[in-house]
Amino acid sequence: MFKTLEVGKQIKSSEFNELALPLRQKLLEAQFDLAERNYPVIIVIGGLDGSGKGALIHRLNEWMDPRGIETSTFWEHSDEEESRPYFWRFWRRLPSRGQIGIFLGSWYTHPAQEKIDEKINDEEFSQYCKEIEIFEHMLNEDGAVIVKLWLHVTRDTQRQQLEGTAPGKKQNPRVTDQPYELRGKYKQALQVSEQLILGTDSSHSPWHLIEAEDRHYRDITCGEIVLNAMLAGAARHTTSSSAAEHQLVVNSSAAQPTVLDSVDLELALERDDYKEQLAKYQAKLQDLAWEAYRHKRSVVAVFEGWDAAGKGSAIRRVTQAIDPRLYRLVQFAAPTDEENAHHYLWRFWRQLQRDGRCTFFDRSWYGRVLVERVEGFATLEEWQRSYGEINQFERQLAEHGSILLKFWIHISQEEQYQRFKAREQEPHKQHKITEEDWRNRDKWHDYELAVDQMVSRTSTRHAPWTLVSGNNKPYARIQILKTFCKTMKQALED
Amino acid sequence: MFKTLEVGKQIKSSEFNELALPLRQKLLEAQFDLAERNYPVIIVIGGLDGSGKGALIHRLNEWMDPRGIETSTFWEHSDEEESRPYFWRFWRRLPSRGQIGIFLGSWYTHPAQEKIDEKINDEEFSQYCKEIEIFEHMLNEDGAVIVKLWLHVTRDTQRQQLEGTAPGKKQNPRVTDQPYELRGKYKQALQVSEQLILGTDSSHSPWHLIEAEDRHYRDITCGEIVLNAMLAGAARHTTSSSAAEHQLVVNSSAAQPTVLDSVDLELALERDDYKEQLAKYQAKLQDLAWEAYRHKRSVVAVFEGWDAAGKGSAIRRVTQAIDPRLYRLVQFAAPTDEENAHHYLWRFWRQLQRDGRCTFFDRSWYGRVLVERVEGFATLEEWQRSYGEINQFERQLAEHGSILLKFWIHISQEEQYQRFKAREQEPHKQHKITEEDWRNRDKWHDYELAVDQMVSRTSTRHAPWTLVSGNNKPYARIQILKTFCKTMKQALED
Repeated sequence: MFKTLEVGKQIKSSEFNELALPLRQKLLEAQFDLAERNYPVIIVIGGLDGSGKGALIHRLNEWMDPRGIETSTFWEHSDEEESRPYFWRFWRRLPSRGQIGIFLGSWYTHPAQEKIDEKINDEEFSQYCKEIEIFEHMLNEDGAVIVKLWLHVTRDTQRQQLEGTAPGKKQNPRVTDQPYELRGKYKQALQVSEQLILGTDSSHSPWHLIEAEDRHYRDITCGEIVLNAMLAGAARHTTSSSAAEHQLVVNSSAAQPTVLDSVDLELALERDDYKEQLAKYQAKLQDLAWEAYRHKRSVVAVFEGWDAAGKGSAIRRVTQAIDPRLYRLVQFAAPTDEENAHHYLWRFWRQLQRDGRCTFFDRSWYGRVLVERVEGFATLEEWQRSYGEINQFERQLAEHGSILLKFWIHISQEEQYQRFKAREQEPHKQHKITEEDWRNRDKWHDYELAVDQMVSRTSTRHAPWTLVSGNNKPYARIQILKTFCKTMKQALED
Repeated sequence: MFKTLEVGKQIKSSEFNELALPLRQKLLEAQFDLAERNYPVIIVIGGLDGSGKGALIHRLNEWMDPRGIETSTFWEHSDEEESRPYFWRFWRRLPSRGQIGIFLGSWYTHPAQEKIDEKINDEEFSQYCKEIEIFEHMLNEDGAVIVKLWLHVTRDTQRQQLEGTAPGKKQNPRVTDQPYELRGKYKQALQVSEQLILGTDSSHSPWHLIEAEDRHYRDITCGEIVLNAMLAGAARHTTSSSAAEHQLVVNSSAAQPTVLDSVDLELALERDDYKEQLAKYQAKLQDLAWEAYRHKRSVVAVFEGWDAAGKGSAIRRVTQAIDPRLYRLVQFAAPTDEENAHHYLWRFWRQLQRDGRCTFFDRSWYGRVLVERVEGFATLEEWQRSYGEINQFERQLAEHGSILLKFWIHISQEEQYQRFKAREQEPHKQHKITEEDWRNRDKWHDYELAVDQMVSRTSTRHAPWTLVSGNNKPYARIQILKTFCKTMKQALED
């Protein structure tokens, strides 16, 4: 989840000022509008120590009118708090209607800290997540707009920040009687953070994950998220129009790197190498599929990727290896009438095979946050809440014992162009290329953003994404087969 | 929770036909309207064996067009189901948009059965509740209208039904390979049912508890609940108008008995008896308050009741016994501006005293479902969802270690009249009687209904209601003091 955020998004100083000025103006307007309204805005800022939470709060206070903002930090604990139910301390700091409350060290801090220190077990932790969900849901039903920002920095940056060696930065002294101190526990802290985010990511108060390496990017992005949430809240409270209809402000700056940029598209395999490895991993996979059958573990694999990325032929290399009794391949195009008459997840649930079998999804539930998002088939509200729905769905699969694999086959825009052209010239492939494919190509950038967000929001411990280097088809196929073998072997050994 | 439902609500045969005819007509209209719409209706029927779930389903099918209804029973289990994640079996039976799905033996059956049989522990059970909440929330966000009916019958009726000895009834053979069989486990089953209802009672899909002793009352009431939910759903999907604004159908039949009718108002204490017991229980309470202080257990007591029921003087008898350092009495009238600027529970949270102290609430958060409901200060949506909010609030208090007491002081309408008259005649009491008191009196019946529902929806194991017999003030005061002593003693011994 977090690793996929480390792609180096940044905004230059010169550009920052250009972006900040109008943003600040709009934030102020939204704040003045809020003052007249009947609901509060609650901003929760999460992230490990050293991720720049404090600096962000300074910025928000600088950009808006601090008289309408109350920041609560909870860095000192009182026995007054300890001697009352957990949420009492937060109730008393809740902003009034018309006000903004920023929470640094919120209801999330204590359970995270306790779990990292192994003072509470999984059940207790999950109970905290449920309490948080109930609390936020109640506030939301009362009208509150809740914005949850999670700032992520790399391990190195964190270390530099904590040791005060970050270039050109002055770090506040870390004074707290219950230190949220994670040095030496970075990995564990990230794991708990992921659990926390997944357990409390709801449609009414979703988490936003922000790469916070670059402070300009961090501040602009967070400012925009806050602004959009405030505009959506105003729209929700003003008329019948759903939040989807209001005018979203989108970061107008130059394209940022995405997680796809981390894929090395130069990787390739020689023909002989390929043949050898294909035989080797297909044989392995054959055995593993039977072993999974014996262990009654089902496999659920999702194949997504650009048009012409080679999904079909890659899937064939997988299915060739597996006894037809053990797998089923399902393809998804536009939903049927019957499917449209149900929740969008319904058509995927119905395809699940029994324990011990493999189900391969050629396109999947991720259509919701890809094509349906980009083409506007799903409303903003619908596709945004589907990250949580998808994570819950996959968690249920994993808890039932299914082994999950998710592939995004990545190719370059240039490579796609070549393949499209080649298809047009080969009679037996002409059916594979349509006007629509060319149209989709124009939306490359939109899809990139959608994939970037999809990968960071739905890469979980139990269902991580594999980004496949697809410019060289042999390489891609072997990467997929290898991933299958490795993942299944590991799961069956557990 | 359930005991308070056993008050003997019924509808006579003759009256039944009068009520059923228009209800049926309206249900059919609602069903035809639904067929054109873009969301399904999901009716979940819960209750112990023998509570008449099957008969109710027959009735609903008789009243509506069975072609638009699909009933799912899940009484036979297949290995197809067992070999997929738990919710798969329900996903595949979900009704399409425009259709009604009735679930007998739903996602609730398995966790209830497992818990009663002690095959799962509290954590696992609570995990099921969370899964259910996630599932229903997701369906609701997709537009589904969810109606959850819980039928309750007394132990005797259940036994008669199960043994086929119920007068004039023919019982279906109980055939199921996983019998939801509760004979001999009645008490345990009720306890689990209460946990299940509290754990899954949400604003988007609230539970309705129905006394199902009388089949006429059961059918009319359930029919009305279904109809109202369908009308509310239609209103929600049609315009911006909140569900609160649509025209509710209310059972127009004669007043039904309420839980208040179970209070024996003839109970009285002689002066000498009273004095003796007052001294005795006040002394006990004094000790117990100090003991609670030593054990760091706080006490939260709520006093509600009719105007002129004697709340004030009863509270005085309690506070007299307790060291002023140990308690705080808070009174609630109309909320202040500051209080109005927050969630309605905020003003109660802020009054909570520290561990070891007592907080006495002269009127309380129950105003939401009493005066605010009856006077229309809260919308239908607001006060309906507050049952769940209140139960969650009190659960948090109980889990923190607070000892909860809730009193409703009941008097007869005649007694209230006498007391009002007397107040008007005594100069020093005239300030206690206003025009508003007389106006409230006209709404006696509305308040009765509100109290009835409040008591059944919020009487929980950790925070039960005590209905106080208030026509005789000495009796009422001693009943309250005794309840204090008993509850605190028990809690401190745990």
